[in-house]
Amino acid sequence: MSTQPEPDTPLIPAGGSLLIAWQLKNKNVLIVGGGEVASTRVESLLVTDAHLIVLSPTDGLCERTTELIKQYPARVTHHDRLFGGDSELQNVDMVLTAIDDVVQSQEIVDLCRERRIPVNAADIPDCCDFYFGAQIRDGPLQIMISTNGNGPKVASLIKSKLQKSLSGNEGKAIEKIGRLREMLKERAPGVGGPVGRRRMKWMSQVCTQWDLASFAQLDEASMKKMLDLGWPTNHVPSRTEVFGIRSSTLLPARASEALHDRTAARDISTSTKFILPLAVGFTVGVFSTFVISALRRR
Amino acid sequence: MSTQPEPDTPLIPAGGSLLIAWQLKNKNVLIVGGGEVASTRVESLLVTDAHLIVLSPTDGLCERTTELIKQYPARVTHHDRLFGGDSELQNVDMVLTAIDDVVQSQEIVDLCRERRIPVNAADIPDCCDFYFGAQIRDGPLQIMISTNGNGPKVASLIKSKLQKSLSGNEGKAIEKIGRLREMLKERAPGVGGPVGRRRMKWMSQVCTQWDLASFAQLDEASMKKMLDLGWPTNHVPSRTEVFGIRSSTLLPARASEALHDRTAARDISTSTKFILPLAVGFTVGVFSTFVISALRRR
Repeated sequence: MSTQPEPDTPLIPAGGSLLIAWQLKNKNVLIVGGGEVASTRVESLLVTDAHLIVLSPTDGLCERTTELIKQYPARVTHHDRLFGGDSELQNVDMVLTAIDDVVQSQEIVDLCRERRIPVNAADIPDCCDFYFGAQIRDGPLQIMISTNGNGPKVASLIKSKLQKSLSGNEGKAIEKIGRLREMLKERAPGVGGPVGRRRMKWMSQVCTQWDLASFAQLDEASMKKMLDLGWPTNHVPSRTEVFGIRSSTLLPARASEALHDRTAARDISTSTKFILPLAVGFTVGVFSTFVISALRRR
Repeated sequence: MSTQPEPDTPLIPAGGSLLIAWQLKNKNVLIVGGGEVASTRVESLLVTDAHLIVLSPTDGLCERTTELIKQYPARVTHHDRLFGGDSELQNVDMVLTAIDDVVQSQEIVDLCRERRIPVNAADIPDCCDFYFGAQIRDGPLQIMISTNGNGPKVASLIKSKLQKSLSGNEGKAIEKIGRLREMLKERAPGVGGPVGRRRMKWMSQVCTQWDLASFAQLDEASMKKMLDLGWPTNHVPSRTEVFGIRSSTLLPARASEALHDRTAARDISTSTKFILPLAVGFTVGVFSTFVISALRRR
């Protein structure tokens, strides 16, 4: 194994993080602290199916943390005490510290690292096995923005840029795709093998030929129709086939693509704008010719 | 601790993952397998500062994996053998399996879990502590798109949507913000305390008042100017103050914001479009009045 780093061809830059979607279903996550930062941690973690343990004297809880503990009694357990050492880490799968005491944070991190428990200590980058980033969430769609330690302000600048490009229907579309895949699996069951491959190929083709806006419009009946029409003959039904002519006439090809919609709206106002100056020009032309000829006749 | 889940107010939905930026600087990541999937794993991991170990008989390496091993000798070590059991996991901080043998994959995963080593087994969701997602990368900016297991096709649909909203200058802008923060720290050193807070506040104000496009245009000299002008008096210098009048006249306020630019371009063409129908209308007006009065005079 080479231990001395040699200069590599700098095609793939280093210095980044590995962005991953960590699975916390039925895992125990310990949050040490109860203030503002702790409350944002609780919120980030509530979207997972983890069980959260908040360790903080009650008088150290901020309003939001108190609220979350009350609101989600099955998902958050509060212990009214300070971190008591080693024993707190039993059966814990992840630890987040959110306390002002840097020394204690570091002690907790050391204990976690001995036990190989992933840990994040707020505001102490060196004590973090992982960082949090800005997030956009819409149902099953989750987007994370990491600026590699360049601060939350920058991340939120990028976040608002990205948000503008989303129509808000993407989560719904993804849910429908998931449901369609489920229905297909019921119709053509089995793991792997030729059926599995054919199923994967068909879903992939559907995803290539249909846009997200159209997926969002699907319901159980139209999904069934889609499978009835497409699966046995191995083709991707068109929107017209699935929704019928009337519906497809009503809906533009990429209906909920926000930008597209805005462009269309602009096109209409542009043509309105074209008629107005034309009319104004015409009126001025007629009027000025009249005036000039009237003046000449005098 | 409550063990029986009770129905919660469904304000924050569950069923998601925790998106995080995992730190792999100087860590050892074992990749079992050498085929196509392994090659994408190597590529994902090369952006981190991890040391990669690829475990695969040489005849099992695909072209891309072979290429990457050759190209990055200091970052990737190849062992020409199959997974040899327990001993392979010594000093390993993360394991990714990318082999066809599901049974062996599961055995490796079990060994990792005993040792609490984070593991991902390609194509076996139940054997994954974490999932990968579609990614956009531009220097220090990393964006991850997770569709909660709804497949890479859907993620890439979202990815291309998001990519369209980025100008390509964001990474550069973030680098400049990072450099500006560094320069400020050199000027006003110290961790935490009143100086730390003032520094954080100033940087935050700068990030609020300046846009990403303007940040991308900064160089060492203009950053120095920005600090000279803004830091002692605790204000955020304007673009004109930093770049001078000429430069700020040349550059629109949000120059490289792609959408904005396109809007501006559209505004110009709209005003051109306004003059054209006006002129056409005027000409037609004059002409038709002439014709009508000529006909009347006959």
